[in-house]
Amino acid sequence: MSLPVYVLNGPNLNLLGTREPEIYGRQTLSDIEQAVGAHAARSGLTVDFRQSNHEGVLIDWIQEACTKASAIVFNPGGYSHTSVAIHDALRMVTCPVIEVHLSNPHRREAFRHHSYVSTVATGVICGLGATGYLLAIDAVAALLKAPR
Amino acid sequence: MSLPVYVLNGPNLNLLGTREPEIYGRQTLSDIEQAVGAHAARSGLTVDFRQSNHEGVLIDWIQEACTKASAIVFNPGGYSHTSVAIHDALRMVTCPVIEVHLSNPHRREAFRHHSYVSTVATGVICGLGATGYLLAIDAVAALLKAPR
Amino acid sequence: MSLPVYVLNGPNLNLLGTREPEIYGRQTLSDIEQAVGAHAARSGLTVDFRQSNHEGVLIDWIQEACTKASAIVFNPGGYSHTSVAIHDALRMVTCPVIEVHLSNPHRREAFRHHSYVSTVATGVICGLGATGYLLAIDAVAALLKAPR
Amino acid sequence: MSLPVYVLNGPNLNLLGTREPEIYGRQTLSDIEQAVGAHAARSGLTVDFRQSNHEGVLIDWIQEACTKASAIVFNPGGYSHTSVAIHDALRMVTCPVIEVHLSNPHRREAFRHHSYVSTVATGVICGLGATGYLLAIDAVAALLKAPR
Amino acid sequence: MSLPVYVLNGPNLNLLGTREPEIYGRQTLSDIEQAVGAHAARSGLTVDFRQSNHEGVLIDWIQEACTKASAIVFNPGGYSHTSVAIHDALRMVTCPVIEVHLSNPHRREAFRHHSYVSTVATGVICGLGATGYLLAIDAVAALLKAPR
Amino acid sequence: MSLPVYVLNGPNLNLLGTREPEIYGRQTLSDIEQAVGAHAARSGLTVDFRQSNHEGVLIDWIQEACTKASAIVFNPGGYSHTSVAIHDALRMVTCPVIEVHLSNPHRREAFRHHSYVSTVATGVICGLGATGYLLAIDAVAALLKAPR
Amino acid sequence: MSLPVYVLNGPNLNLLGTREPEIYGRQTLSDIEQAVGAHAARSGLTVDFRQSNHEGVLIDWIQEACTKASAIVFNPGGYSHTSVAIHDALRMVTCPVIEVHLSNPHRREAFRHHSYVSTVATGVICGLGATGYLLAIDAVAALLKAPR
Amino acid sequence: MSLPVYVLNGPNLNLLGTREPEIYGRQTLSDIEQAVGAHAARSGLTVDFRQSNHEGVLIDWIQEACTKASAIVFNPGGYSHTSVAIHDALRMVTCPVIEVHLSNPHRREAFRHHSYVSTVATGVICGLGATGYLLAIDAVAALLKAPR
Amino acid sequence: MSLPVYVLNGPNLNLLGTREPEIYGRQTLSDIEQAVGAHAARSGLTVDFRQSNHEGVLIDWIQEACTKASAIVFNPGGYSHTSVAIHDALRMVTCPVIEVHLSNPHRREAFRHHSYVSTVATGVICGLGATGYLLAIDAVAALLKAPR
Amino acid sequence: MSLPVYVLNGPNLNLLGTREPEIYGRQTLSDIEQAVGAHAARSGLTVDFRQSNHEGVLIDWIQEACTKASAIVFNPGGYSHTSVAIHDALRMVTCPVIEVHLSNPHRREAFRHHSYVSTVATGVICGLGATGYLLAIDAVAALLKAPR
Amino acid sequence: MSLPVYVLNGPNLNLLGTREPEIYGRQTLSDIEQAVGAHAARSGLTVDFRQSNHEGVLIDWIQEACTKASAIVFNPGGYSHTSVAIHDALRMVTCPVIEVHLSNPHRREAFRHHSYVSTVATGVICGLGATGYLLAIDAVAALLKAPR
Amino acid sequence: MSLPVYVLNGPNLNLLGTREPEIYGRQTLSDIEQAVGAHAARSGLTVDFRQSNHEGVLIDWIQEACTKASAIVFNPGGYSHTSVAIHDALRMVTCPVIEVHLSNPHRREAFRHHSYVSTVATGVICGLGATGYLLAIDAVAALLKAPR
Repeated sequence: MSLPVYVLNGPNLNLLGTREPEIYGRQTLSDIEQAVGAHAARSGLTVDFRQSNHEGVLIDWIQEACTKASAIVFNPGGYSHTSVAIHDALRMVTCPVIEVHLSNPHRREAFRHHSYVSTVATGVICGLGATGYLLAIDAVAALLKAPR
Repeated sequence: MSLPVYVLNGPNLNLLGTREPEIYGRQTLSDIEQAVGAHAARSGLTVDFRQSNHEGVLIDWIQEACTKASAIVFNPGGYSHTSVAIHDALRMVTCPVIEVHLSNPHRREAFRHHSYVSTVATGVICGLGATGYLLAIDAVAALLKAPR
Repeated sequence: MSLPVYVLNGPNLNLLGTREPEIYGRQTLSDIEQAVGAHAARSGLTVDFRQSNHEGVLIDWIQEACTKASAIVFNPGGYSHTSVAIHDALRMVTCPVIEVHLSNPHRREAFRHHSYVSTVATGVICGLGATGYLLAIDAVAALLKAPR
Repeated sequence: MSLPVYVLNGPNLNLLGTREPEIYGRQTLSDIEQAVGAHAARSGLTVDFRQSNHEGVLIDWIQEACTKASAIVFNPGGYSHTSVAIHDALRMVTCPVIEVHLSNPHRREAFRHHSYVSTVATGVICGLGATGYLLAIDAVAALLKAPR
Repeated sequence: MSLPVYVLNGPNLNLLGTREPEIYGRQTLSDIEQAVGAHAARSGLTVDFRQSNHEGVLIDWIQEACTKASAIVFNPGGYSHTSVAIHDALRMVTCPVIEVHLSNPHRREAFRHHSYVSTVATGVICGLGATGYLLAIDAVAALLKAPR
Repeated sequence: MSLPVYVLNGPNLNLLGTREPEIYGRQTLSDIEQAVGAHAARSGLTVDFRQSNHEGVLIDWIQEACTKASAIVFNPGGYSHTSVAIHDALRMVTCPVIEVHLSNPHRREAFRHHSYVSTVATGVICGLGATGYLLAIDAVAALLKAPR
Repeated sequence: MSLPVYVLNGPNLNLLGTREPEIYGRQTLSDIEQAVGAHAARSGLTVDFRQSNHEGVLIDWIQEACTKASAIVFNPGGYSHTSVAIHDALRMVTCPVIEVHLSNPHRREAFRHHSYVSTVATGVICGLGATGYLLAIDAVAALLKAPR
Repeated sequence: MSLPVYVLNGPNLNLLGTREPEIYGRQTLSDIEQAVGAHAARSGLTVDFRQSNHEGVLIDWIQEACTKASAIVFNPGGYSHTSVAIHDALRMVTCPVIEVHLSNPHRREAFRHHSYVSTVATGVICGLGATGYLLAIDAVAALLKAPR
Repeated sequence: MSLPVYVLNGPNLNLLGTREPEIYGRQTLSDIEQAVGAHAARSGLTVDFRQSNHEGVLIDWIQEACTKASAIVFNPGGYSHTSVAIHDALRMVTCPVIEVHLSNPHRREAFRHHSYVSTVATGVICGLGATGYLLAIDAVAALLKAPR
Repeated sequence: MSLPVYVLNGPNLNLLGTREPEIYGRQTLSDIEQAVGAHAARSGLTVDFRQSNHEGVLIDWIQEACTKASAIVFNPGGYSHTSVAIHDALRMVTCPVIEVHLSNPHRREAFRHHSYVSTVATGVICGLGATGYLLAIDAVAALLKAPR
Repeated sequence: MSLPVYVLNGPNLNLLGTREPEIYGRQTLSDIEQAVGAHAARSGLTVDFRQSNHEGVLIDWIQEACTKASAIVFNPGGYSHTSVAIHDALRMVTCPVIEVHLSNPHRREAFRHHSYVSTVATGVICGLGATGYLLAIDAVAALLKAPR
Repeated sequence: MSLPVYVLNGPNLNLLGTREPEIYGRQTLSDIEQAVGAHAARSGLTVDFRQSNHEGVLIDWIQEACTKASAIVFNPGGYSHTSVAIHDALRMVTCPVIEVHLSNPHRREAFRHHSYVSTVATGVICGLGATGYLLAIDAVAALLKAPR
């Protein structure tokens, strides 16, 4: 169980904390990375934390996770709602996948109500800001301990 | 901040652990109640844990929570998808509301993809079985500590 | 014609005046009850004023009204948009039925634009706050005087 | 507060009382004009009562009402369901607007269930025949007395 | 096989025979109860016959049937079309479930064409008036005899 | 039976013959007026032939036809697809109404496939160019002869 | 131009005059055949009049008409709304095709509002009873005379 | 009342018992024919039992039943969902029509949820396998006894 | 090329600058007329600037433009979304047509997202306030210079 | 494996080569039959090549193929888009089924985008003209060789 | 105000002038770059002109523009209709954003009628070919001068 | 004719043979590359075989193919269903384009039923596993030989 948890972040999350803080909060992605790493360590987990604006790069990373990660925590940003290709990549993953959104997409525009990731994720956590990432790590810890 | 967290459970959750375990898991609602109580205590929170099959009773409890609870953790079961009346009751609540589902509704029938509760909840946690309740308690603890 | 007018109020109307006053106004349901009673008396009508959060209780009352009421003034709240069972109960009523909404549902979310009650009501009055109840009483007075 | 209430009537209402009386009743528009005038006088209001089959004329009158009327009572007839231009004209009005329909459109064809006027009107009264106009005058009287 | 057949009746069926006889026929629910009891007896079956206007009560009874009934004959009335909660309760039942409607909903309004009960029922019988209940008893008798 | 047949033409038909001849043909509206008059005379009918680009004027003429015409032949042009007000005016007419289109709207854009006029017309003739008007006159002649 | 006009009749038209006369009139199909033959003769046209309940037979006849008929007058009955195969057969026809319906489908159920035949027919005549067939013959006569 | 009951079976039912038994059961159509005949005899009814894969043949038989049958028991198979022509044929029938399906279409693909036959049938019985035919015979027996 | 550019303005634009300035800006229509005239002069163009609330008048003007204008700049206001008749009039125009909207309709209500004018206009400019008119004049200048 | 491959052709394919060659090509069905036979022979397969305009006949042939064919190559023509009955027949087939279309339906009208055959076929080949039949034979050859 | 205007071009625009000139014109992207640069210089603006086929690269550039550009002129090509990720990136931009399309998407396929960019752009210019870029520069010049 | 055939593979196809073999088969992409190369050689064709998870890279390759390839065989994977940008790139291609899918998307989730590639491809082959690629090569060979 010594494989790291991949924490993957999709488009625009690199600007976190500097733009639209009333929706996404004031923490930067780097703040979250640090908090997640520290939190994971308490459960004996290591984290590989990445961000990309490129759909193809996210697919590459998910494919890599098939053999290199114990679990995926994934905030797919805007690709949640449009990417069948990411959906297909996630279908090939056998480890737990936790989808995280900082905001609650169900309170926003209609086009954010459907997620191609949710239909293949183990679980979904949304609307809880950066705390959502920490809860996702806890969920991973619980799932890795439990018989699946 | 000594008001309890209301943990409200909707229809059919009283049968938990005895029916459709492949979807909902093998823990009974009483098992969950105990686990939630113990987990909350660690964060200095108390829990008022209830279940009803009656939409009207759930509305009564949500109204009661307006003045008697510090937060609501709510698994609305089948009423998630059909109850505007519960939606309206939750709109009147000013404390945090965390919606929890044991299974991931996005992997199930289309009629489970929309929730009238999600559009008024602070956050949503689903697909993580009984662990979801514990994460919801942690979310409540974080939200009550943070400035809203 | 000495039967009372049933004034029935659906879910969450018991909290009137304390929650979301920018939508529903600052009068309590008890204020409205008094105003309606006084107004009805001027037309020689008596009023039986009730509220419930329970769909089943509202159906029981509508059925009771079949033989015990001269007319129904009904604010169905959130059940307007979802209850075929209330619709069916109202179909069995032969006296006038006036649907009242404090706010104007057509200015709100799409799911409030259809009402199962409107399709069986004699008339509908909405968007006029507590005044709507008084107009409904006047409508009842006019209808009971007129040949139907 | 000495400006008149504009009571505007849309297409085909000039034939009232002579056509489809089972839907619209047997009173002529002139009967209603007289009844409305008398009823308004009791509340100290004057009425400017008009009818046109022309969408453009109705828009002209609504624009005129912006500065010349204390309130609008409006039966838009068939334009309710199709006129964005009338909707836009009403958005520019700051006085109360009460939409009136003689019949209850929710009991009729599906294309009558949506009204572009309802989404900008203060309140809506329908299904109560000519009485609806009198109630609308009472609503105006109440709204003009109340702080808005 | 000595457990009774639960014959459950939803909202407004208590008024049977007194209202809208052109749709639902002239027999009262009590007439049907007697006929069903007598008919069941001929197949060696006993019947527990109930009616409620309350969705929650119907869910309670369905849950009770999980362990106390050999089969369910269910006329869900208006809840057929709106209740995911009843649907979920029925999913937990392992005995045969026969849905019965007195009228043929496919000949009525569009909102009656979908039933959340039909998608979990063993079989559906509709449009045959009170006779439908007797046929449902016969279906139950056949199903309980057959290997499932 | 000496009342004339009103032949009413909607928007843009005044440009007939000069624009888009591949869709509407090369005859001018005046050519059609003459042909229709001559054809009607052969059946002993007189014709009152008019055109307007104004919805309100067309409504005025339809209302006038209620008492002054023996039948209406109506090419509503673009208003076919959008005018509930014209639909309502035609509902008040008791004489035969024949809708005519020069082109066949079912072979054109989707928004031309529904006509508010067709749902109240006695009959519809389309796709036959100017000949359609002559057939409509023949249809009127047949209908006026026949018991309705 | 001595090829006959094929007058093809689809399912259930053989029962004409004996069933649902309030919708389809009291003339039998044989009455119509005679009237059509006589009427066509006046324009120097001959008619080949047929009826079948079988979609495949109708397709066979349409294919035959490609080389053996000068025009097709076609009442496709219920196949209007469902048959892509008939639509495809008609696309291969180069002579005029006039679709006829005895009743006006736009005044009936929604599923009768779309016709796969209308989208390939030259013209459509509906709502005019048996007269529609005669007008269709006149339309054919006009089309065969005109340059196409 | 000595006319036979027509029991008509649509496409693919001739293969019953040999294909997809998990959906349609193991009885052959011939087994069902025998069972139905025997069962009907007990109610003093005779049966004319037929099957065809051809829509046109089924229409011919329904038309024949207008004058030659006391009732129709009809399993339309796949034509249920697509045939307006069969719907129209059944509208012309005045005797009772009972639609039967071996499986419960509401538990299957979406395209099986609507039936053009249900909207004209007296009653519908589905999901009960071959037993459904026997219940349909009982329904016919009851209907023929009762005043309609 | 000495024909003027018709700048046509639809309903409610006469109130520009006095109503809803947060959406439409503070310039009056007369301000815009002046600015457009001056701007056009710089490109050697003359302008005929008009406004009407009447759909029929706008159609008359578009027809007039067929022969009297070198181009049309058109702000159709609310008729954009509802008028097939204006769409048809514009189809008959062969000169350039530039649709202008002061606000950006795609950021507003869903019913403003479709424009019957856009589907026949050469180009569309929106969201740029009064500047949009000037850009439209420049577009016209460029189009009239270029080979079409 | 000496059973023939059934090559079944639906409605209007008998006219191939003579009608709409820009869509379907210039080869006749007989040309294709010969080419397919020769091509199959090279893989040691025999072919039974048929065409019908009748849905019922096609169903009969598919049923026959259940026991008499090694595979089906099927061009269902217009029945692709409308026939649940053919879909059901194909569900009963256990040998490979290859759907072939001469043209590419996805480039044509919207009603050709869904095929009831595709949802039960092993594979689909379209847009490749007569070559598609030869490729289908190769696909069959490959499938019959491979373990399924 | 010395920051450059970013002129960003999405997928396939690099082939401009060589492919589908009947839709997109004959100018190459390099021609447009030159014309835009020269035109901008006249308003004292500099331009940074780029093109990419990669959604991720476009997002990177938009993010860069947040701090390095005075305005964005954006032709998103095919990503207009599908990219929520680009929409989200643009929401974070505070400078003016002008969307440009060479062709008029409203005259093309339905899937081009919605743009995720339009709902966050300041303004939209389409259908005017390369001229549209120049008008966009003028719009930027006007917006940067005006108080926002 | 010495340009190679581009065989382009979209997202996740690099994992072929290792993931979800029940859907996609057990052959790796490299196995397919070899088989395709050998098969093409037999028709005198050379192949340039590539795979990418990046939409932008696929667009680059398609653009390259405009001048460097004799044909494209394209398995667009998940981008089939979402990429207008790829659709636009393919529109610019004048050589044959054959779309290939290993599985039959019409038997899978609804979101796989529409392909933006199919609407611009010459032909489509699906559901035939790796054999589909070989058939595509044969199709290309036939198309390059034939006059287009």
